Amino acid sequence: MNTLTTNDATQIYCKDRGAGRPNVFSRSLPLSANAWECQTKTAKNNVPRHVGFIPDGNRRWATDHRLSREAGYVHGIKPGLLLCEKCEELGIEEVSIYGFTQDNTKRPSIQKQAFSEACIAFAFEIARRGAALLVVGDETSAQFPKVLTEFRHRQGVGMKVNLLVNYGWEWDLAGLKNGGLHSGEVSRLDLIVRWGGGCRLSGFLPVQSVYADFYVRDEYWPDFDLQHFDDALDWFKKQDQTLGG
Amino acid sequence: MNTLTTNDATQIYCKDRGAGRPNVFSRSLPLSANAWECQTKTAKNNVPRHVGFIPDGNRRWATDHRLSREAGYVHGIKPGLLLCEKCEELGIEEVSIYGFTQDNTKRPSIQKQAFSEACIAFAFEIARRGAALLVVGDETSAQFPKVLTEFRHRQGVGMKVNLLVNYGWEWDLAGLKNGGLHSGEVSRLDLIVRWGGGCRLSGFLPVQSVYADFYVRDEYWPDFDLQHFDDALDWFKKQDQTLGG
Repeated sequence: MNTLTTNDATQIYCKDRGAGRPNVFSRSLPLSANAWECQTKTAKNNVPRHVGFIPDGNRRWATDHRLSREAGYVHGIKPGLLLCEKCEELGIEEVSIYGFTQDNTKRPSIQKQAFSEACIAFAFEIARRGAALLVVGDETSAQFPKVLTEFRHRQGVGMKVNLLVNYGWEWDLAGLKNGGLHSGEVSRLDLIVRWGGGCRLSGFLPVQSVYADFYVRDEYWPDFDLQHFDDALDWFKKQDQTLGG
Repeated sequence: MNTLTTNDATQIYCKDRGAGRPNVFSRSLPLSANAWECQTKTAKNNVPRHVGFIPDGNRRWATDHRLSREAGYVHGIKPGLLLCEKCEELGIEEVSIYGFTQDNTKRPSIQKQAFSEACIAFAFEIARRGAALLVVGDETSAQFPKVLTEFRHRQGVGMKVNLLVNYGWEWDLAGLKNGGLHSGEVSRLDLIVRWGGGCRLSGFLPVQSVYADFYVRDEYWPDFDLQHFDDALDWFKKQDQTLGG
């Protein structure tokens, strides 16, 4: 991995951007250059540059619809495509989506199969639509769907879409021992939106989330409506982005 | 620092606890033993074991009271003592409080002096009251109040109180390069309560926060009332604690 100190990264990637505000990332932690690309750049016109999505509530949705719990995941694919389309339309540069985690793989195998298949279907369709897809997760494990290996390096030139598949926060941080996060290609998040009512990160990209504003919807993910995201963006506009300053 | 793999830590500290649930921390990231002490232990009777506090809004409170901005911090000391007293009464084992960060030290020096002094006053008073105080932050920097150096190692046998002083998330994570977080003595958080309306972590203990439930109050910190914390605990009781499973 191409590792630089964050200061180097800033100098290389952001020299003409973010002037006038303190560079809060220019300290000593070695991170990959891409991880902090444009890190000093603030959200443009209050539209977030990078948004994270935690699409929770698929199983509860299925139960509410008298379906077996694992039957919810397939109903989460179209909402994801719709949301990405909306992000691209708004000029959002990067999105990160929680597919499934190493923690999740401890669930019953019928569920595991269902969420893996949903992730695979989403990945191939979003790539087909021209997104610059990167799958982020531990590909050395049997839980990682082999067909997604090709996306462990970003492909394409459209909006950046990071799909977390067999992701683990400990796996991610363990990369620091060798010079950089395993998610080193993923930039700092401005906004995180979660469905399903939980007000917590559940291990979602802990480093990129340090300054992110966190917006929670009670609706279950398969009940996604574009209005939810409009509300999130309206809310985001009212937050001050201080980056800890 | 005494570093072990998390698996070792679990074996040493938690062998008779948390039976029957997956040990989500038993992977390969080396963390100090204390960091993950009792990590598999769930909140008892839905009372959180470890609570984090982000006491934001001191400057806005001062402005609202026609005071200079830095005049707010001193009004945050008594609320902190009151809150800790309440936590001890409830049998909460550990609390972590955001004092000030390395980011904050870029503020005007009159503010810097005011929040440093408030932290010092709080630290000495909470120690006098018998808390097992640990100050967590970069003591090698000039921004770290020298009088707090004695608390960089935990002292006392009462409720654990971790006060973050000149803390930085990058400083914290940089410790991983040498085998363990700089905040390695701080355990996993169950609940984080923030005042001042911001729904974000602002760099607060990113590793310990991965599974924490996050509760936000709009009131400014100097307007703290015990009812806020009662409300937070009531809310926490209604959350399912899945630890990502």
